[in-house]
Amino acid sequence: MKSEIKIPKKIESKEFVLVCGLPGAAYIGKLSVDYLIQQLNAELVGEVYSKYFPPYVLIRRDGLVELLRNELHLHRDEAAVDIMFFSGNSQAFSPEGQYEIADTLLGWAVDNGVKKVFSLAAYVTGRTFNTPRVYGTATSSEALEELKKKGVVPLDEGIISGENGLIMGLAKKRGVEAVCLLGETMGYQTPAGQYFIDAKASKSVLTMLTSILNLKVDMEPLEKQAKEMDDIIARMAEVERRIKEEMSESAKKPSYVT
Amino acid sequence: MKSEIKIPKKIESKEFVLVCGLPGAAYIGKLSVDYLIQQLNAELVGEVYSKYFPPYVLIRRDGLVELLRNELHLHRDEAAVDIMFFSGNSQAFSPEGQYEIADTLLGWAVDNGVKKVFSLAAYVTGRTFNTPRVYGTATSSEALEELKKKGVVPLDEGIISGENGLIMGLAKKRGVEAVCLLGETMGYQTPAGQYFIDAKASKSVLTMLTSILNLKVDMEPLEKQAKEMDDIIARMAEVERRIKEEMSESAKKPSYVT
Amino acid sequence: MKSEIKIPKKIESKEFVLVCGLPGAAYIGKLSVDYLIQQLNAELVGEVYSKYFPPYVLIRRDGLVELLRNELHLHRDEAAVDIMFFSGNSQAFSPEGQYEIADTLLGWAVDNGVKKVFSLAAYVTGRTFNTPRVYGTATSSEALEELKKKGVVPLDEGIISGENGLIMGLAKKRGVEAVCLLGETMGYQTPAGQYFIDAKASKSVLTMLTSILNLKVDMEPLEKQAKEMDDIIARMAEVERRIKEEMSESAKKPSYVT
Amino acid sequence: MKSEIKIPKKIESKEFVLVCGLPGAAYIGKLSVDYLIQQLNAELVGEVYSKYFPPYVLIRRDGLVELLRNELHLHRDEAAVDIMFFSGNSQAFSPEGQYEIADTLLGWAVDNGVKKVFSLAAYVTGRTFNTPRVYGTATSSEALEELKKKGVVPLDEGIISGENGLIMGLAKKRGVEAVCLLGETMGYQTPAGQYFIDAKASKSVLTMLTSILNLKVDMEPLEKQAKEMDDIIARMAEVERRIKEEMSESAKKPSYVT
Repeated sequence: MKSEIKIPKKIESKEFVLVCGLPGAAYIGKLSVDYLIQQLNAELVGEVYSKYFPPYVLIRRDGLVELLRNELHLHRDEAAVDIMFFSGNSQAFSPEGQYEIADTLLGWAVDNGVKKVFSLAAYVTGRTFNTPRVYGTATSSEALEELKKKGVVPLDEGIISGENGLIMGLAKKRGVEAVCLLGETMGYQTPAGQYFIDAKASKSVLTMLTSILNLKVDMEPLEKQAKEMDDIIARMAEVERRIKEEMSESAKKPSYVT
Repeated sequence: MKSEIKIPKKIESKEFVLVCGLPGAAYIGKLSVDYLIQQLNAELVGEVYSKYFPPYVLIRRDGLVELLRNELHLHRDEAAVDIMFFSGNSQAFSPEGQYEIADTLLGWAVDNGVKKVFSLAAYVTGRTFNTPRVYGTATSSEALEELKKKGVVPLDEGIISGENGLIMGLAKKRGVEAVCLLGETMGYQTPAGQYFIDAKASKSVLTMLTSILNLKVDMEPLEKQAKEMDDIIARMAEVERRIKEEMSESAKKPSYVT
Repeated sequence: MKSEIKIPKKIESKEFVLVCGLPGAAYIGKLSVDYLIQQLNAELVGEVYSKYFPPYVLIRRDGLVELLRNELHLHRDEAAVDIMFFSGNSQAFSPEGQYEIADTLLGWAVDNGVKKVFSLAAYVTGRTFNTPRVYGTATSSEALEELKKKGVVPLDEGIISGENGLIMGLAKKRGVEAVCLLGETMGYQTPAGQYFIDAKASKSVLTMLTSILNLKVDMEPLEKQAKEMDDIIARMAEVERRIKEEMSESAKKPSYVT
Repeated sequence: MKSEIKIPKKIESKEFVLVCGLPGAAYIGKLSVDYLIQQLNAELVGEVYSKYFPPYVLIRRDGLVELLRNELHLHRDEAAVDIMFFSGNSQAFSPEGQYEIADTLLGWAVDNGVKKVFSLAAYVTGRTFNTPRVYGTATSSEALEELKKKGVVPLDEGIISGENGLIMGLAKKRGVEAVCLLGETMGYQTPAGQYFIDAKASKSVLTMLTSILNLKVDMEPLEKQAKEMDDIIARMAEVERRIKEEMSESAKKPSYVT
């Protein structure tokens, strides 16, 4: 079972940019991309499946079952560039899996004429602040200069871990220009270590991204969507806590029966 | 060494449904499927081997050695649909392995004209109850509605972990209709974390499944089979406990000798 | 880098039996096979390399470096069957690796006309005894009956973990007859968890094996060889302890430098 | 995504020797090779990418993003042999990955006519000393004898772990002569387990290597470079500490959101 991108029907698209936001610290990338998909009513055009996702299936509120997957949604724009959104309910489970999925995605994007990649992520500073700043990094000095002109604070030294970071590095390796916008966040967590969604940081990131891409998006419903997502995460965290308990129990029970 | 399905001889079968029950919480899926195989005297027609199983071999009561494996048993029915049972003494060891084996099985089933997939599992509620209910999820609203009419309680939100769950998600991805029946169980465990077999929950699941599939099966010997399986699990748990002790010791000893 | 068997030159051999003894509990299999190779002056005819071995190289007493590997030594016998010995300084590191190497070996053996497989291992009983018994398991009732006639005690229920066990199960799957001889051992260990070599149990296993294979081997030097191997293991255990300390330290240090 | 060596343009080179120094204990190999690359102004001619590196990207001081990678730098020498340096900011993450990358490198080197391999590493003795000695091991007695004549102390028994060691063993397997020079070091570490760079040990190793290769290199700036590298490591260690905290937190948070 290879990591694969399933495109149900031929995509008719001009050149497009790829905007990526998988779940990560404070859910900034995920909330931002999910929000844009909803507000722009972007069309689901592709699905990414992989054996590298965690070995669960989800049961949705309507009772139907769903494999973990990443998704591609396309926003067609008559006046400007088309936008392909890369989102999903999980990152890969293992380091090799994170490389595989990010590279499978980029291979597909390059084959289909991607123009530029945007990755959205969190920058956990642990500081308090009024308006979260937007930090940035890029694959070229030119791209970084453009970000600076827009008011993005350039990062210097550090690491971006996980697929949101690997997508940047792999884009550079493939010769595709890419920038990463990171919303400054305190990174508040529950005592159990679960991140709160940082809607304010997402708003900063979205304001910057929509300005760069010349998108008009109503920011009003963002807080509401963040609130709903928080509720879902809380419920899912409870379910996952129970599953993890079961899994650690299962490590103790025999794994076979004759 | 690839995960592989070995079919010793050509199977002459009409359309069939696939009924899956690997070992998991409270052994509900495994007991149910093993019981049907025995009661229906289903024929062993295939074996599934994989490097993703745990690195042990079993020694049977007759002294002969056996690789861990999953099995396919066929029940031929003149009047109704044929039934292929998927069972075994172990799930895969790693997350990637669980995806690989479930997907290898489904690929084979699709190639051979599978009509519908049934996965049997446990729903650990931790509540007490008199008669265990049967919960369900499905790959389509139509299939879920049919379950509801039969009295199955639809799940809403949650996770099914392991191969019994992945089989559902992978079936959906391949366009095969699938339903999962989950027997409600307290999930009693020994102090060492070993599940007791829940024969009552298995009986609820079996009653529902045989009603859906129009099978006539005597439920009388189920309790007895559960009791026997409990004895085997207890003996195997003791053996495995010793093996695990050895393995943790072996982590301390040198892994090589010049 | 695939697991591979390197045969430097064409082997001229009649039908042969394969005798396997990798390092495991009490080093019974390893000591037995190493001893036979030495006493019979068997010729090194092949090497097994794999990325699944632990990521070390060994430095020998003569100062030269050596990759971890398994080896094939051939004993040619004019009057009786030829014997191929499978030995080495390590088992594979991961479960998948253990399957891969055992299966690579068996695939090669089948292609080259192997007649029967003997696996030598330990049976840790934790009991005290005067003369260690030899336990056994097999892939067929006929083979097990033959063992019983020789005085081997048949195992009933249990597990053989690691490659010494997997070789048995994989032989059965490939239709090759195989038997496993397990020397009864207390499984004495140092406080640090390191096994002592059990030369008495090895002697019991060797006496049985040479009787089955009609080999004449002087048992006198076995104790001496066991003593020497014990010294080496003690030295290597000290080196490995230091390496493991370093490795757990290295988990704490940064894995990269810009 | 396979481990791959990317050579941007055709290398015009005579026979070359390969000099390897990845990050490891006390950073002796890495500092030595990085220093030679800088002092000899060797040209970057190739890059090694792999899914087996840790799943991070680095952000450089200039704000640009970089995938973890290994590098090949070529020093062309009119009078003597050309030298290819193998260096990088990380070793592979998993044991299999360490084998894969070392073997990919050696396969490429053999295809391109490598004459001899030098691996530079640390030998942690835990003893104090005035001038660190240089220890050595080799793939052949002849090569080891040559080292001894130069004053290298031959190792007897032991292990070299990680890619710096595997490169030696894999070279031997491929029939390429290789020697390893190990700088004696106390292996000082911070309370957090981070190695200090041992510039004195690097100097001993470099003095030996340049003597063997007939290279003229000014040792003066070595201390300064070691000091700079120490600062970088300290900063990166702090960043990595934070990342690791995040990662262990992330093990507690749900890995998906519906």
